[in-house]
Amino acid sequence: MASLSNSFCVSPSCDRGVKCSFSKLRRIPIGDRNLVSLRSSPVRIELNRNGFSGLNPRPMRGKIWATAAQTMDQSSTKTASSAPTIVEVDLGDRSYPIYIGSGLLDQPEILQRHVHGKRVLIVTNDTVAPLYLDKVTEALTVGNPNVSVESVVLPDGEKYKDMDTLMKVFDKAIESRLDRRCTFVALGGGVIGDMCGYAAASFLRGVNFIQIPTTVMAQVDSSVGGKTGINHRLGKNLIGAFYQPQCVVVDTDTLNTLPDRELASGFAEVIKYGLIRDAEFFEWQEKNMPSLMARDPATLAYAIKRSCENKAEVVSLDEKESGLRATLNLGHTFGHAIETGFGYGQWLHGEAVAVGTVMAVDMSYRLGWIDDTIVNRVHAILEQAKLPTAPPETMTVEMFKSIMAVDKKVADGLLRLILLKGPLGNCIFTGDYDRKALDETLHSFCKS
Amino acid sequence: MASLSNSFCVSPSCDRGVKCSFSKLRRIPIGDRNLVSLRSSPVRIELNRNGFSGLNPRPMRGKIWATAAQTMDQSSTKTASSAPTIVEVDLGDRSYPIYIGSGLLDQPEILQRHVHGKRVLIVTNDTVAPLYLDKVTEALTVGNPNVSVESVVLPDGEKYKDMDTLMKVFDKAIESRLDRRCTFVALGGGVIGDMCGYAAASFLRGVNFIQIPTTVMAQVDSSVGGKTGINHRLGKNLIGAFYQPQCVVVDTDTLNTLPDRELASGFAEVIKYGLIRDAEFFEWQEKNMPSLMARDPATLAYAIKRSCENKAEVVSLDEKESGLRATLNLGHTFGHAIETGFGYGQWLHGEAVAVGTVMAVDMSYRLGWIDDTIVNRVHAILEQAKLPTAPPETMTVEMFKSIMAVDKKVADGLLRLILLKGPLGNCIFTGDYDRKALDETLHSFCKS
Repeated sequence: MASLSNSFCVSPSCDRGVKCSFSKLRRIPIGDRNLVSLRSSPVRIELNRNGFSGLNPRPMRGKIWATAAQTMDQSSTKTASSAPTIVEVDLGDRSYPIYIGSGLLDQPEILQRHVHGKRVLIVTNDTVAPLYLDKVTEALTVGNPNVSVESVVLPDGEKYKDMDTLMKVFDKAIESRLDRRCTFVALGGGVIGDMCGYAAASFLRGVNFIQIPTTVMAQVDSSVGGKTGINHRLGKNLIGAFYQPQCVVVDTDTLNTLPDRELASGFAEVIKYGLIRDAEFFEWQEKNMPSLMARDPATLAYAIKRSCENKAEVVSLDEKESGLRATLNLGHTFGHAIETGFGYGQWLHGEAVAVGTVMAVDMSYRLGWIDDTIVNRVHAILEQAKLPTAPPETMTVEMFKSIMAVDKKVADGLLRLILLKGPLGNCIFTGDYDRKALDETLHSFCKS
Repeated sequence: MASLSNSFCVSPSCDRGVKCSFSKLRRIPIGDRNLVSLRSSPVRIELNRNGFSGLNPRPMRGKIWATAAQTMDQSSTKTASSAPTIVEVDLGDRSYPIYIGSGLLDQPEILQRHVHGKRVLIVTNDTVAPLYLDKVTEALTVGNPNVSVESVVLPDGEKYKDMDTLMKVFDKAIESRLDRRCTFVALGGGVIGDMCGYAAASFLRGVNFIQIPTTVMAQVDSSVGGKTGINHRLGKNLIGAFYQPQCVVVDTDTLNTLPDRELASGFAEVIKYGLIRDAEFFEWQEKNMPSLMARDPATLAYAIKRSCENKAEVVSLDEKESGLRATLNLGHTFGHAIETGFGYGQWLHGEAVAVGTVMAVDMSYRLGWIDDTIVNRVHAILEQAKLPTAPPETMTVEMFKSIMAVDKKVADGLLRLILLKGPLGNCIFTGDYDRKALDETLHSFCKS
């Protein structure tokens, strides 16, 4: 089928797969220090036709992390806790670093080295602004009197991720007479990052931008990889651009102010990385979920770093989502239907993704592609994370079907899905599945 | 001055310039024929520090055109008049052809080879739709039953080049359940091309698109080079994207239905190419303007082809407008101020550009950079084209200044302009000029 030519398969039964190997550590100078970064992008991609070891480079990754921890201990910086780990997103001339660590917003040199012109526009929301706007403004301007900072504070929530709200960013940028050399800074969660990124992509046909994600969801997923955009009343993220930031600054201290429900929502994406490509990470999560829920700083930092590494690797291999990158959308097609059908903002994105993941796993099991232990483990870990595992009662089969029909992964009329196939940590992106299984899944999760 | 580092200078007195040489003819297969194309992109860029021969590769160009004409005569196609000339825009993996000729919309294979998926959305307006929508739909679908075509008809005019109208395109695309493999087709003038292109860039983060420009303005300028976007109430084209089409199809027959005022408006851009980089073309226009105004087909076709060649060459050298490409905006900074200040749609774009050109030439003369024969020749040719040479009486110096302050060519607060410098066919893009000359020009063209 011609329409399947774009499907991407990552499973033991597939004859095409991508195996990655990690590269060496790299020194990146920041200010007056040298920090060791994790270069998580692959230096070698192997396509093997027979027998497939999966996308998860387990042995190498373990080694890298041990080395990183060692290096952090041996760091010559004043406080080891404030030295960021750097995950590099390798995209040729659009490559950029993700800085991860505690207290990064107190290190002005990190932000300032990525601001090129004299004007900055911070885009944030009315929840985050009272907490961090002054701090970020200070970080951008301290010892840097030539830079002037404007800000625009949007209403908080997914339901405002629309064209009307986006126009407020353009209005502010234009009224402030910002020019092509300005920098937009996204300060907030995924909604702010997506909107600010799309505004940066579109303002004067493209200006610099920087992501400062303040939620787990944004830190492990949405701020990395350059997907930007807004919702349309008929579907999520239907209008947008691929547009990469200059850098991403993840200050883990910002999670101290995050509500419990938002925290758990972000874990839905962390769990996703384990399921689609990193079984060892999933197993680690099974052991450490209580610690993550209790916001243990070291456990959170590890989960964020490992998630960013997974995402950076996938994005480096497939920036524009011609295949592999789509696997990051496990659970998202069902999840988007819930967000759209139930009304944006009723559920958090990660809550909808959690249910979507359960539905995708259910369908994978009905297709005979995974065994029931995976089904049970997915239920168990989501329950540990206090995430929902069934859609809202108002969602009907017809609502799912009609909303999923406008999903971006539809190709020439065929809905392609990310499903699990094989042992834990393997998935497939395909439109080649029995429609009956999809119907059965929808009926088993909906009352009508 | 750091802020001048982006200025680009093309003049005999400048120590930096770009000299281009043209490359050979190239065979491009279309359907079952082989056509000879003009590959106008440079194969060699020379920066010379002393003595500068200008950007206009006169001797080579003349030779190429002779060869092209010859080839057309020797063509093996049924009717020589229907064989398109092809100007290639050389942008690496985003390269695309501009097909120019009579009756191209009657040659379905040209359009069909650039449509990849099964779904097409034609974006047009209520003036062009009654004239050409059926014809283009036929060209897309004849002998091609797998392709289905939707269309959205927007109100005609620059004043509708806004976010509200753009949303109608997204609404139609989403309601029609178009997916990532669809193709958007812009059928109309510059406004339609810019809006359809930006919609294509943004819909599902980017889908294919094709330009079918139906005005001189769009055929010689706006459809080529990938600048897309919409206006903001505070300025023109402030929101948009660089996004290249799959191809541009210029059917010169569509000019038969173009109103006189629209025809003349397009000539403002044709004249621009002569002034900034192609003195020989300007001299040709001085001789042939009566023939152009009388819509002589061969004269029109030559003006379009040579304009596209100039534009393709500039865009190939500087896609994202880091310097050279800005020279295509001669007269546009003043012109945009007129369009914004006087209200979008009151004047046609080319009419505003014509006045802007006169103002830029006036300022260049006040700076002592050109002699008065150029000033007189610019006035004369614009009058031949029945284009205005003075702004509307309601425009004040303050209106010009405040609107020009948000121009995209402002860098760190400094307004950079394209001005003529040296003999005919040479220009400079710079912020390094005496402010007094700008003030004098504004005061001499405004009553208050």
